[in-house]
Amino acid sequence: MGKQSNEMWGGRFASGPDAIMEAINASIDFDKRLYREDIAGSTAHVAMLADRGVVSQEDAAEIRRGLEAILAEIEGGTFTFSRQREDIHMNVEARLAELIGPAAGRLHTARSRNDQVALDFRLHVRSAFDDLDRALRAFQDALLARAEEHADTVMPGFTHLQAAQPVTFGHHCLAYVEMAARDRSRAQDARRRMNESPLGAAALAGTGFPIDRHQVAEALGFAGPTRNSLDSVSDRDYAIEFLSVAAITATHLSRLAEEIVIWSTPQFDFVRLSDAFSTGSSIMPQKKNPDAAELVRAKTGRINGSLVALLTVMKGLPLSYSKDMQEDKEQVFDAIDNLALALSAMTGMVRDLQVNAAKMRAAAGAGFSTATDLADWLVRELGLPFREAHHVTGRAVAMAEERRTALEDLPLEALRELDARIGEAVYGVLSVDASVRSRTSFGGTAPDNVRGQVRFWRERLGAEG
Amino acid sequence: MGKQSNEMWGGRFASGPDAIMEAINASIDFDKRLYREDIAGSTAHVAMLADRGVVSQEDAAEIRRGLEAILAEIEGGTFTFSRQREDIHMNVEARLAELIGPAAGRLHTARSRNDQVALDFRLHVRSAFDDLDRALRAFQDALLARAEEHADTVMPGFTHLQAAQPVTFGHHCLAYVEMAARDRSRAQDARRRMNESPLGAAALAGTGFPIDRHQVAEALGFAGPTRNSLDSVSDRDYAIEFLSVAAITATHLSRLAEEIVIWSTPQFDFVRLSDAFSTGSSIMPQKKNPDAAELVRAKTGRINGSLVALLTVMKGLPLSYSKDMQEDKEQVFDAIDNLALALSAMTGMVRDLQVNAAKMRAAAGAGFSTATDLADWLVRELGLPFREAHHVTGRAVAMAEERRTALEDLPLEALRELDARIGEAVYGVLSVDASVRSRTSFGGTAPDNVRGQVRFWRERLGAEG
Amino acid sequence: MGKQSNEMWGGRFASGPDAIMEAINASIDFDKRLYREDIAGSTAHVAMLADRGVVSQEDAAEIRRGLEAILAEIEGGTFTFSRQREDIHMNVEARLAELIGPAAGRLHTARSRNDQVALDFRLHVRSAFDDLDRALRAFQDALLARAEEHADTVMPGFTHLQAAQPVTFGHHCLAYVEMAARDRSRAQDARRRMNESPLGAAALAGTGFPIDRHQVAEALGFAGPTRNSLDSVSDRDYAIEFLSVAAITATHLSRLAEEIVIWSTPQFDFVRLSDAFSTGSSIMPQKKNPDAAELVRAKTGRINGSLVALLTVMKGLPLSYSKDMQEDKEQVFDAIDNLALALSAMTGMVRDLQVNAAKMRAAAGAGFSTATDLADWLVRELGLPFREAHHVTGRAVAMAEERRTALEDLPLEALRELDARIGEAVYGVLSVDASVRSRTSFGGTAPDNVRGQVRFWRERLGAEG
Amino acid sequence: MGKQSNEMWGGRFASGPDAIMEAINASIDFDKRLYREDIAGSTAHVAMLADRGVVSQEDAAEIRRGLEAILAEIEGGTFTFSRQREDIHMNVEARLAELIGPAAGRLHTARSRNDQVALDFRLHVRSAFDDLDRALRAFQDALLARAEEHADTVMPGFTHLQAAQPVTFGHHCLAYVEMAARDRSRAQDARRRMNESPLGAAALAGTGFPIDRHQVAEALGFAGPTRNSLDSVSDRDYAIEFLSVAAITATHLSRLAEEIVIWSTPQFDFVRLSDAFSTGSSIMPQKKNPDAAELVRAKTGRINGSLVALLTVMKGLPLSYSKDMQEDKEQVFDAIDNLALALSAMTGMVRDLQVNAAKMRAAAGAGFSTATDLADWLVRELGLPFREAHHVTGRAVAMAEERRTALEDLPLEALRELDARIGEAVYGVLSVDASVRSRTSFGGTAPDNVRGQVRFWRERLGAEG
Repeated sequence: MGKQSNEMWGGRFASGPDAIMEAINASIDFDKRLYREDIAGSTAHVAMLADRGVVSQEDAAEIRRGLEAILAEIEGGTFTFSRQREDIHMNVEARLAELIGPAAGRLHTARSRNDQVALDFRLHVRSAFDDLDRALRAFQDALLARAEEHADTVMPGFTHLQAAQPVTFGHHCLAYVEMAARDRSRAQDARRRMNESPLGAAALAGTGFPIDRHQVAEALGFAGPTRNSLDSVSDRDYAIEFLSVAAITATHLSRLAEEIVIWSTPQFDFVRLSDAFSTGSSIMPQKKNPDAAELVRAKTGRINGSLVALLTVMKGLPLSYSKDMQEDKEQVFDAIDNLALALSAMTGMVRDLQVNAAKMRAAAGAGFSTATDLADWLVRELGLPFREAHHVTGRAVAMAEERRTALEDLPLEALRELDARIGEAVYGVLSVDASVRSRTSFGGTAPDNVRGQVRFWRERLGAEG
Repeated sequence: MGKQSNEMWGGRFASGPDAIMEAINASIDFDKRLYREDIAGSTAHVAMLADRGVVSQEDAAEIRRGLEAILAEIEGGTFTFSRQREDIHMNVEARLAELIGPAAGRLHTARSRNDQVALDFRLHVRSAFDDLDRALRAFQDALLARAEEHADTVMPGFTHLQAAQPVTFGHHCLAYVEMAARDRSRAQDARRRMNESPLGAAALAGTGFPIDRHQVAEALGFAGPTRNSLDSVSDRDYAIEFLSVAAITATHLSRLAEEIVIWSTPQFDFVRLSDAFSTGSSIMPQKKNPDAAELVRAKTGRINGSLVALLTVMKGLPLSYSKDMQEDKEQVFDAIDNLALALSAMTGMVRDLQVNAAKMRAAAGAGFSTATDLADWLVRELGLPFREAHHVTGRAVAMAEERRTALEDLPLEALRELDARIGEAVYGVLSVDASVRSRTSFGGTAPDNVRGQVRFWRERLGAEG
Repeated sequence: MGKQSNEMWGGRFASGPDAIMEAINASIDFDKRLYREDIAGSTAHVAMLADRGVVSQEDAAEIRRGLEAILAEIEGGTFTFSRQREDIHMNVEARLAELIGPAAGRLHTARSRNDQVALDFRLHVRSAFDDLDRALRAFQDALLARAEEHADTVMPGFTHLQAAQPVTFGHHCLAYVEMAARDRSRAQDARRRMNESPLGAAALAGTGFPIDRHQVAEALGFAGPTRNSLDSVSDRDYAIEFLSVAAITATHLSRLAEEIVIWSTPQFDFVRLSDAFSTGSSIMPQKKNPDAAELVRAKTGRINGSLVALLTVMKGLPLSYSKDMQEDKEQVFDAIDNLALALSAMTGMVRDLQVNAAKMRAAAGAGFSTATDLADWLVRELGLPFREAHHVTGRAVAMAEERRTALEDLPLEALRELDARIGEAVYGVLSVDASVRSRTSFGGTAPDNVRGQVRFWRERLGAEG
Repeated sequence: MGKQSNEMWGGRFASGPDAIMEAINASIDFDKRLYREDIAGSTAHVAMLADRGVVSQEDAAEIRRGLEAILAEIEGGTFTFSRQREDIHMNVEARLAELIGPAAGRLHTARSRNDQVALDFRLHVRSAFDDLDRALRAFQDALLARAEEHADTVMPGFTHLQAAQPVTFGHHCLAYVEMAARDRSRAQDARRRMNESPLGAAALAGTGFPIDRHQVAEALGFAGPTRNSLDSVSDRDYAIEFLSVAAITATHLSRLAEEIVIWSTPQFDFVRLSDAFSTGSSIMPQKKNPDAAELVRAKTGRINGSLVALLTVMKGLPLSYSKDMQEDKEQVFDAIDNLALALSAMTGMVRDLQVNAAKMRAAAGAGFSTATDLADWLVRELGLPFREAHHVTGRAVAMAEERRTALEDLPLEALRELDARIGEAVYGVLSVDASVRSRTSFGGTAPDNVRGQVRFWRERLGAEG
């Protein structure tokens, strides 16, 4: 058993240091994913070199042609990646030499693998921020659709997973719109912060060639070049920041996933997942396992792990480049892919899930959940001090409990025994519908508020284009 | 042995469930730290309640007077915190009732402990972002002073902790100015993002009282109120984001700390810490243990741990408030205090450390560290292709090695054996000083660049006021 | 606002490097907790020194007397700890000199603060392993009592939080007995592994004094001395291992805590926590917030955080002692205290919680949860291939669903339509009771198995004494 | 740019819920690694079923034949894994049905995917513990060889990375032998603890089939079956424990890696890595980048990350199986592979590295590193109290510093000025060689001790066979 691991520990490395070193050192297995960024960077670099007269326009044209051919080969699946050539940069460079000969050598003028690594990875993470932002936008859209649809659907508002006060399902959906908005805001801030081009930092000290870093930065869509060459090749803040943005996003998703898992139990029965996102039992038709929600919940662990991994790697590294940093990519790639998957799955679930409004309403009404509404009414309308209002409410609840009825079904005369000033108007807050309608404070759960917030978000998202 | 832990595990809880519950449930031991925020929040809340006619101006004045008295008691050290009253909110509320009687009860109108907790902690974290920003600014100032002083001080630029190319110590300091600038940018973005008032979310659903959340928000310096009541009492993003900003900052400090530890060895001898930040041996006068640097390095672990703690706590929590969230505070408080300590210590070390420029220069010149300068010169001035330039350089280095001399001490005729076109001008790049002077690309290590960057940062920081 | 943090970041350290250094460097605020271990270590050390003739018996007696006096002072609350004296070792040593004069100086012969730190902390962690083992034993006892009581109490066995097959609550309790047994096994293994005395490693190289490390080891209850002096002062494996044992234990507790939170909802209503471990609402009598369970669940985050903290601190530390290691103690102390609290609270909840057997049974029977029992019966008794048995079962379930009845309430003739060989005996597996009774495989949920396992554990625990 | 991620976030999932669900749900891409374990488990299961008469011997033979064919197909590379069939279990099962027809269906009798997953993964982790143990043994062997070779090679013993007292390189190597021994001990304990067979737990409740779990356990090399069916399918302790054992091991490796990085600098120049484990510069012949050591150091982060990931995943999961647990495998597989790589690389480096004994000795002698030896001598031989001995030593060092000489080169008359009783014998401790020779306490660095420890370990390892 465990052949693969046996091979790993034993046989495979029995062949000696070279095999071990290749296995631990080569990054091509994962950094080939950066091929587009690598080629884009080289293209911008050589154009600048030619404009500045560092290489001839002819050589630059040759190099560009070669890079285009390599791009086509890679995308066409005909490129052979080589572990001996270690990484994507060397693989592209070596192939370029094969394709266009000695001119290929000029591409590396005024550049080093260190700033090239920094550039490629930064471009990739920048894309990831953009992709994350778009995926979160789609998640918000899905939530807004359900929020609008369920602006009036009453459900229990939970604290400690115990029904506390009635809210609407639309309001609940909007809470996640807010979280996603913060996630997007974080992604956008981080993207803006890291949008500077390291190219031209060279190995670590800058270069004596008369390069124009601003031109290259502009060509690659950066706001400008970085300001310190040592920092440029040492900095992995953008990768850690991506992982921390991802971790918070994943945490939000895990909360909704947990709710879906709990709400899908027969005991709650608030929602039902479509077959697409659950698995069943051939002989137990009611059993619907919320697999997708559970997997989304679990992805949080994976992404937290990647964050810890990179923070640990970077701890205590002296400037500038150390090989330790090569461990950055797999963590970020894994987080990108798994967060994409989790967000897609959650967006799909939000779109598909079937809401059992009757169950939600029934649960919202149980447990005298409008008792605080009664107490607030006594304070607000009769001017009772808070503590006295609580006392009266406690007696009303005891009365209802004794009569095995809901608060709203207590007759007026019964309530008047508690305080003679209580009038018909009190029923305006005792039902769950009345309760949610009354929560009109800004940000409160009143259905009109919910609809207003949906409009607010629609406009704001609409303005994004 | 282990009496305290014995008490913890055994004796202390032998007294039964109540003692256990008090120990696990009460938060006053740590959340008393929020007393100012709690009183400020209550003051703003009651002023609004009075303006909206929810409580009388007389009651409001009484409450304000009582709150001021409590603040004075706490700051004067005469306030008795009680574990039976669980948390800071109940401690203040109960004392208020003692001081002003029944009117105290009106303070809690249209408010809940849930949004009060959210408010107090948010205010505290907001202050922490501001404090962090200021402390990072002081760190930048210290670095800029040393950068200016050492704009011309040549040292080895390291990759893999091996000298690669000469840089200046000023340039090295500026790399940390950049990191601190990103840290500040993160703190400022996060601060702006979280600067919304949760007060008025009440327990979780909003309230039916005619409150003005915008007024309270303004009074407390918030940009406005939060938009969703469920989210308002469930959100701890700001705390996680503080911890992630802190973790990245601490990671930066750990890198400089590691450098100081290594540079303080007799083998490197690049810097010497003042006695204030090191400990010695009574009988080994040379031994200077860089304790402060080691402790700064270690703080990274602590802060990473707090980040993991809170991410783990929040994973999979259904909305809205769950008691789990009470674990947020100690993690954040600990990170605030320890990052403050680490930043103060590092700023102090940067200010105090004595630079051994001679040792730095000698190390910069060893190992033919200007070989890449020679290769670049051959490309730039003679038009050699990159690979050929490397070949010629390799031969020059071999020649110098054989003669046991530095590259810059090779006679011109020797160099001309390698390529007859090499002229006197080549010496313009072969010394470490010439090398650093030549790195004039934007962000490069040339002393004039370094001075330029110091001016840039001085102006930018000056503009902050 | 944020006065304390302001003080921390600003005012407090304005006084300069010395204040900063004292704040970051002194450990007495937390390591005073090690006073018993420190005194025990010194007592053993001096006894050995005297036996080996390194100090006189008179001096040794003086020192012992002084140490006893100090122990009494500390336990009596009359000892003044001083931050200037940095740590517990210096505090004790300096007080000893005050009490007994110059002889005190002899105590430090053939010993260094490095091995003293290592000894004290190791002794403390050793106690913590013992305490944890005892607390887990108490947890097991509580679980066994409930397992015995509920060996026949049928409840749903969940997968994906969906009822899958009936089990008994006793069986469910026993699952946690197993987890606790593994936790104890881990604690015991780790305790055995770390039970070696570092004393005598001196600063890092051993000593030339004719000491007897075996004698000291024995006096302090160690299996023997450590074998390498460098390792002795550098090793913090035992602390990391305590944290990892604690993290797994806390994870187990978090699972049960999550179950209690879910089971306490009105929707599940499987269990009810006593008032001691929950908080209520003065006006909503049904609302019982499972605060203690939520806090236990949250402690997992805290302990995971401590584990990450110490792993991060130790990463990449060169031998032997570095000041970074001073960060070990607070993490471990915090984990000890919080795990103790969590275990006590959970043990208390297990003892106190009220089981709603009727609700459990009803939930167990819903959803045709014995369908797999039917399928298994068809395979076992009629020899149907698995797939065909599943097909027949599916039709039986459809039939029951159509008739809105349970499987066990289908008349025999109906079942015989599906397969004529089905006889009365089939009802022996169709009820939830029959189902659990049938699961007699080793480790299965049959009530007799459960009682057998309770006996097994009682005997095993009984043998422990 | 970022095509792959674009595909991930956008295009790929545009095709709808089914594609998303397949992507997030299917585990075959990684769990195919468990094919041997899956087939071994099925083989043992069916043999038992036949022995117990649950399936016929003919069917069992058919199934065994089919399983052997599948094993051959997979190992021969001709097996087509299918994502539609989700996981390794379904892939094997479906192929078995193709190969042998309906009899294949009988294999799944009295078994469930839940206990099958638990079995396969447990078997794999068990192998990983064994492999880790073997790899650590090889690491110990390499260290012992160098320890023996360098039992007399003096080097500085560091605290705070400052030379404190002389030790030998052999002694330093032995410190890592101790760490590896603890790592092995942890792996062995964990292996023993988890060596119980979950098979027969079925879905979660056990089974009514007359199976013999002990037989299956024995056939698969387990000590016996697990005792609780719910626990059997819910437990992932063994995976977490593997990761925590791996994390501590990786932490040890990171410490040695850090030392190699620092010792490889020209400033230290204590060791030189072979070309196999470093990379050079074509034009800077001295520059040897310790890539392998840096990568080993970085792997710690990755493994810590996996530990955090799985701890986070398991936090708060109710019993029994939840789909979240599917996230366990990739974390463990990644840790297995990367720790194998790191250990192989480190073992290779230990074997290959060239020790610069002259540099080590020179560094050991600098800084009056034998001052404590002098002080100890004064206490030991002249009976001076510790503090007075320190005072005298301080004056001796000052004297040597003034004369710019080493302690051992001070003339006797000079020393006698400090204390007239000092005699020739004092020189027996003043040289670094004398110093290390004098550290004869058990575990001390004296060369004979080192040789003794090498013998001790050789015997102990030899006894392992």
